[in-house]
Amino acid sequence: MKWNLSLPSGTKDKLFREANGAYELEQKVNQIVRKRGYQRVDTPLIEFEDVFQADEIEGLLYRFFDKQGRLLVLRPDMTMPIGRVAATAGIQPPLKLSYSGRVFRFNSEMTGEQNELTQAGIELIGFSSVKAELECISCAVEILTELNIPNFHFELGHAGLLKEISTYLQLNAEGKRTLKELLSNKNLSALNEFVQQHPSKLDRFIKELPKLFGDVSVVLAAAEAMLPEETAIAAVLEEINKMAQLITLTHPDISLTVDLGSVALMDYYTGILFNGYADLIPEIFLRGGRYDHLVEQFGHTRIPAVGLGINLDTLVALQYRLGILADLEHAKVLVHASLEDIAIAQKFVCQSENSELSLFDTWEEALAYGEKWAYDEVILIQGKEIIRVKAGEQNEE
Amino acid sequence: MKWNLSLPSGTKDKLFREANGAYELEQKVNQIVRKRGYQRVDTPLIEFEDVFQADEIEGLLYRFFDKQGRLLVLRPDMTMPIGRVAATAGIQPPLKLSYSGRVFRFNSEMTGEQNELTQAGIELIGFSSVKAELECISCAVEILTELNIPNFHFELGHAGLLKEISTYLQLNAEGKRTLKELLSNKNLSALNEFVQQHPSKLDRFIKELPKLFGDVSVVLAAAEAMLPEETAIAAVLEEINKMAQLITLTHPDISLTVDLGSVALMDYYTGILFNGYADLIPEIFLRGGRYDHLVEQFGHTRIPAVGLGINLDTLVALQYRLGILADLEHAKVLVHASLEDIAIAQKFVCQSENSELSLFDTWEEALAYGEKWAYDEVILIQGKEIIRVKAGEQNEE
Repeated sequence: MKWNLSLPSGTKDKLFREANGAYELEQKVNQIVRKRGYQRVDTPLIEFEDVFQADEIEGLLYRFFDKQGRLLVLRPDMTMPIGRVAATAGIQPPLKLSYSGRVFRFNSEMTGEQNELTQAGIELIGFSSVKAELECISCAVEILTELNIPNFHFELGHAGLLKEISTYLQLNAEGKRTLKELLSNKNLSALNEFVQQHPSKLDRFIKELPKLFGDVSVVLAAAEAMLPEETAIAAVLEEINKMAQLITLTHPDISLTVDLGSVALMDYYTGILFNGYADLIPEIFLRGGRYDHLVEQFGHTRIPAVGLGINLDTLVALQYRLGILADLEHAKVLVHASLEDIAIAQKFVCQSENSELSLFDTWEEALAYGEKWAYDEVILIQGKEIIRVKAGEQNEE
Repeated sequence: MKWNLSLPSGTKDKLFREANGAYELEQKVNQIVRKRGYQRVDTPLIEFEDVFQADEIEGLLYRFFDKQGRLLVLRPDMTMPIGRVAATAGIQPPLKLSYSGRVFRFNSEMTGEQNELTQAGIELIGFSSVKAELECISCAVEILTELNIPNFHFELGHAGLLKEISTYLQLNAEGKRTLKELLSNKNLSALNEFVQQHPSKLDRFIKELPKLFGDVSVVLAAAEAMLPEETAIAAVLEEINKMAQLITLTHPDISLTVDLGSVALMDYYTGILFNGYADLIPEIFLRGGRYDHLVEQFGHTRIPAVGLGINLDTLVALQYRLGILADLEHAKVLVHASLEDIAIAQKFVCQSENSELSLFDTWEEALAYGEKWAYDEVILIQGKEIIRVKAGEQNEE
């Protein structure tokens, strides 16, 4: 069986308007972050597997070997390579870094998920202030506004909630992993069982967590009411509250909610989490948060950091659906000449905006092409004579 | 042994100015081809191995398996995937296609070659006229001029030479492969032996082939003088001659030579070949030519086609060396405020070109950052008061 006409599952060809639109969209995002003072980082698509030590992506790695038999992978994520760079490249934080490019997730055949994704994002390395989280939101707002994404919406969470609950319940690594999984699947009945196995004053809070999302002050008040007095969880809630206030102060028109049951996709997150949604996009297309311990994984001392990643393919698909994907403008005038007059025709094209040289041997082919691609005019150059024909109309002369 | 601080051989991180410069260079190339009427195509980086059936790249493929055990590769080339697209996507030639992105070549550890490369290129699908070859050269000239590549130079060859010699000598596939290898390595003594094993009226021509490069008319005249009368090789030389004349006619200032010993890197080439060189670049950085049989490999009827690919990394390295790599402009004014005044500061930044919000908690940190990154000014906003400090100078007020 030859497979040379098929594509691997989870990959696709982008053609013409879609490819152009996707490229332009990525360019726009990069222009915005550059204007905001970010410096671009471009890491390889191939890395050693050891860079991506995380349970969450263990099953999603494309693996292969180098000639020494060391395990290589296609990068599943851009934040960990940037952690590696921050730890090894001798760069001096604070630094505002940006990236865009492909990442790879080896999903099972039937999920329908894309295995090759285009992401763009920012990483604020060496910033401990909440202004860095705010900057992520501000930057996302500018990007989504510029891309005309309708009714986008942010949701705040906090990686510290799971940590503080685990500490309070004195969970081991296994217990913590279980709790994380139950929360991330919003599995209420299994969560009930879990709470029965780990009884504490947090029982009600834990059982209610998957439902604790929505209006910031309502949800935070409800959550606080369920907490016993002495936990560190209250401080986490207060951090969320302050963040929400800061965002509302600086972006009064933004749609913002909280989701206390929200779980960080990656273990490197330590603080505020944000997820982005928009109308007509079925999944979270933007994820970010504070990850103060990432570069420690690479043997460096602690560097506080906040980052944000956007799935650009989702936005391209949305723009396509809304009919606002960047258009593929092409030249409006097709200029034809025989080989004898080709130098004259070429000069003509150089001097006239919006014109393009015909690459056909015959005038008839040029006319047909001009009509097919809706050129305004097809021009024939014969020595000093110039014959203009409206595309789709035969020359009457 | 943990490898999480190292990079696989033949890959590298691009940081800051280099990453930005590489991105801008790729953008410029894409702008030029778009303006010239090319439509972008974006194929996956992962493909089935069967798409790349070619001896030349057999040893250079990164291979791995999908969950069904089918062999996947990282694409080593962009032309073959575009052949697949042309054969399967139901698109109607003639079409001018363009691409840019990464390709992967699994070179041995010690060669020092890059295994992850960025290429950009064009493919003219469905064009049989020599105007298509000319368009490739014109497009390359525009790109290299726009990128300020000094003293670039083109060299013409022809894939038909090897074919016609092989026909004349009645070589089998093995003999053809040997001859190709000897020519591509310019191995004169082995070529002498080859000719002794395959004696014919072409003996002298074949032995001289590796030296038949340089000035178009001189080399072509020398070659013709060595040919017996009845071969099809003369017609190939005449095709090269006509192409050279056409290029000189339309680009009188261009540096153009021929290399009759030049061998197509890929077997899919059928006609005119062009290689691009430039001062300070040790290798060929631009390759192209006519490949009229490529889409037939994908089960489609014959579609004449011409294409061109440029190794962008080489051009980035050259621009870097020449000090003409696009600069990373950043904002000139850093605006600091406490959290209480952050909304005012943000409004200020939105309204002033070239300014950027400080993400530090303290004024001292903002001042230090402003000095380190050579901002013109650091501004402190306190309510309605605005204090301006030249970066690097303490506020004297």
